[in-house]
Order: sequence, then structure tokens, then C-alpha cells
Amino acid sequence: MSDTASSPIGVFDSGIGGLTVVAEIMRQLPDEEIVYFGDTARLPYGPKSEETVTQFAIQDTELLLRHGVKMVVVACNTASSVAVAELTRRYDLPVIGVIAPGALAAVSSTLTGKVGVIGTEGTIASHAYRREITNLDREIEVVEVSCPLFVPLAEEGWTDREVTLVIAHEYLTPLRDAGVDVVVLGCTHYPILKGTVGKVFGPTVKLIDSAEETAREVAERLSSLGLAREAGGAPEHRFFVSDVPHRFKEQAERFLGAPLPNVSVVSVDELAAESGRVESL
Amino acid sequence: MSDTASSPIGVFDSGIGGLTVVAEIMRQLPDEEIVYFGDTARLPYGPKSEETVTQFAIQDTELLLRHGVKMVVVACNTASSVAVAELTRRYDLPVIGVIAPGALAAVSSTLTGKVGVIGTEGTIASHAYRREITNLDREIEVVEVSCPLFVPLAEEGWTDREVTLVIAHEYLTPLRDAGVDVVVLGCTHYPILKGTVGKVFGPTVKLIDSAEETAREVAERLSSLGLAREAGGAPEHRFFVSDVPHRFKEQAERFLGAPLPNVSVVSVDELAAESGRVESL
Repeated sequence: MSDTASSPIGVFDSGIGGLTVVAEIMRQLPDEEIVYFGDTARLPYGPKSEETVTQFAIQDTELLLRHGVKMVVVACNTASSVAVAELTRRYDLPVIGVIAPGALAAVSSTLTGKVGVIGTEGTIASHAYRREITNLDREIEVVEVSCPLFVPLAEEGWTDREVTLVIAHEYLTPLRDAGVDVVVLGCTHYPILKGTVGKVFGPTVKLIDSAEETAREVAERLSSLGLAREAGGAPEHRFFVSDVPHRFKEQAERFLGAPLPNVSVVSVDELAAESGRVESL
Repeated sequence: MSDTASSPIGVFDSGIGGLTVVAEIMRQLPDEEIVYFGDTARLPYGPKSEETVTQFAIQDTELLLRHGVKMVVVACNTASSVAVAELTRRYDLPVIGVIAPGALAAVSSTLTGKVGVIGTEGTIASHAYRREITNLDREIEVVEVSCPLFVPLAEEGWTDREVTLVIAHEYLTPLRDAGVDVVVLGCTHYPILKGTVGKVFGPTVKLIDSAEETAREVAERLSSLGLAREAGGAPEHRFFVSDVPHRFKEQAERFLGAPLPNVSVVSVDELAAESGRVESL
């Protein structure tokens, strides 16, 4: 095993939603070590502009690089939709976003040729899923809808409330009316609301969980590059955040689906100090 | 009129909610000039820790000072609840938060001696309203409830939806059951939802709009310090933000209640560059 293979996988997100991707990587790749960074001081990325999100994504990546990661997983749909190309151009290591794996799964799954995508305003406005899906199969019709209240509802933990179902109906009815048979959950928070979304669409519509698809892509890339870590001792994971918000532990553990180990705090100034390197933006 | 009196009033907020305070200052003090800064790249402050919010508040204030303001209005309940004391200690100019004026109005208005306060998780966790109200009258019982979905609902513009009323009932029933006769809208976003909140409580409960109370306090302080700007030519207002998020203009104009003039963007790095001065935190 090369030195690089034994290095950890770096994963970042605007906050805690990316922990759904971490949970899937841990499940599919139990020998890998993970360094996670959640930019909780500056979350959410969803409503913010492309320039700001790209700048944040570069700073987040620099932080992971300082921890010697062998790969960067952009576990945030908003950052994936606007910044993966820029990160790939800048850094000499594999960068995997959550868009491409979700788009590929959608294209493989649709029978009607009509695919729905739900996400934050940033993700939907970028049309990143539409572009990726159409690149794979230009016959497929993509219907995109932003659901701005889903993230706060997931963070509030209101997963089984009637009101969440009412809001889901409000957002999702246009997709149902359009006759999609596959819906991409294009935000790392949304798997938490999978039950509610499933109730609106019924069993004939397949929901694509981009966390699962991304973990699969991570496994394939590591294997094809000879970078998979060999078994040997329990892996050590490290978690960093830029703020410890109220109810952080409760919310983070809901997303990770497991008790959270120790978490270190990185100041936003330390992050912004990287900005000398991003002047070309 | 002294040079200082002709200077603008500085107002900052985590984003656009503070524009409700700006609207009230413009209404009550039509001769004053305003420099507004909304930290839209790092919003919301509500769920974030006291340390992070204080650090952001200092950086926001430094920005306003560079524009020669004569007074700083912290038009954000979260920042007011954790950072006004620190800002007052650091800077040699009047600093007005939104907590004290709202608390004073609540104490003056209650007949039953039971006051409700609603706000973000940060504001409620700080117990800033409880502390301020109890300082004024220790006999008053204060019931505090956080309403994390109100900000996203206000930003989504869902002010008249049935679902908003359902969520309001969910959050506010404990306050109604406690028999409060006054409720402080302890978040600058909440005036947008005043109609819905009023429906839950009915006409016998008085709602305190902290934007109105804060503007009144600004007027009194300027007058008592001899810092009021004299009439003479239409005042020029300047608006700065750290990001231009999706749907910014539409949302900002809903909060300001008027068309938004030109807005300049300040980079977050420029803000964080002030952080050398906040090492003592």
C-alpha cells in the first residue's frame, strides 16, 4: 500500500448535511479514514452566490489539504454544482462532487425519460443536474424544483410532522404532475426527509440518494487509482467545524446516524487567511 | 450642527432582516442618512455560537466605522443579545441594540405581568430579553420560545399560507397557554409574520415590534446627544452586503417595504481582514 493510499479521504460541506455522505462512505468503505470539515460558521451555502460559494469551497479544500487527504469529496450539492470544476483545475488530487454520481444514477433508473431534481436555490439555479443529466442522455427531460424550507425542516428534526408533508406537497406537486419516475434528492439534508418525500410521490417513483451514489463513486475511484486503504486497525476519523452552533451535537448525530466523536473548531479567520491564494477569482 | 451630527447612522444585521429597522428609522427620522451592512455571506447568525457572532459583530462594526458613522445600530437580535456590551466597551460611539428597546416596551405594556418572547435559537438561548426585562421589573414572568422556521418562512415569502399558521400554532401554543398578554417579536424577520402571529394570539395580546421601538430609541439618543441631523436636502443612504444571494432584491424589498437603491458588495475576506484586532476574544 502506498503512503498515499493510507491517507484519509477529505470531505467537506457547508455544515452537517455532508455527514449523510460520511455515513455512507463509512458503511461502504469501513477501512477508510475520513477528515471532515463542516463550515458551520458560514452555512448555509444554498442561497449564496456562485462567487462566494466557490471562494468558500477553495478555503475548505485548503483546510483538508493541510490534513494530508488523498481525495476531496465535496459533500454539498451547492458547492458541487458551482465549484468542482474549479477545484479539479486547481488541485492535483481527485475531487468528487455529489452531482455527477446522482445524475448517473438518475439516467440509469428512469424508464419514462422524465427526471425530477430537488435542491436548494443555489443548486437549482445552477442547473448543474440538468447539465450533467443532459450530457449523459440528451433525450431526458429534467424538471427542477427548489425547496428552501426542506433544510430548516430537516435541521428542526420535523421529519414526521403533518406540516412537513403539507410543505412537501406544495413543493413537489409540479414534479408529480410532470410525470417524473425518478427524483434526485439533490441536497445532503434531504435523505432525512426521504420518508415524507416518498409519501408525496408514492412507490412508483424512485428516489435517488446522492449520498449513496457518491460513496459508490468514491469506492470506484479509489480502487481504480490504487488508492484504497488496506484493512488493519480501526480507522481514525477527524471532524472539524468552523462553529459549534446551538443543538449541534443533536443535529449532527441525526445526520451521521451515529454518535459523533470529538470535534475540533477551526476559526473562520484561519479559513479566510487562505484567501491570498484565491485572488484570481 | 456639528460635523458628527451630519454623519450617517450605521446599521448592521446578519442579512436583510435589519432592513425592517432601517424602514422604521427612515419613517421616524426622515432627515437621517443611513449606512447599512448586511452580512449575507455568513447569515444567519441565529443558530451560531456566541463567540462566532461576537467576532462577526466586531468585523461588521469596523466596516461601518470606515464609513464614518456617528452611531451603530445592531439591527439583529442575535448579535444584540450577545455582542452589544462588547461593542460598547470597544468603541467610543453610541451602540444601540434591539433588545433593550423591545424589553422596555414589553414592561410598559404588560398588565398581567406575563411577557412572551419569540426569537431565533441564539437569541432565546442567550436569555437576553429575560435578563433585560427582569432588570427593569423583577416581578415579571418571561416565557421564551425559539421559532427556527420563522426566518426561512419569512424569506420564502410564505406570509399568508395556511402552513405558516399551522407552524405558528405549533410554536406559540405554549405562550398562549401561559397567559402572556404581551409578546416581543424578538427577531427582525418576524414583523413580516406579524399577521400570522396575531391570528394565533388574537387581539387581546399586544405584539411588540422591536424595529419600531429601536427606531424610537435611536431618535431619543440622537436628540439627547445633540447628534440629530438637520433637515436640508434628501438624505443619501448607502447599502453594503457581503454576498448577493439568490432572490436578494425581491426579499430585501419585502423587508424594506420600498424599492432598494444600489447595493455594494464587500468581500468576506475584507471583513475577516479586520480580525487581527479581535485576538482578545
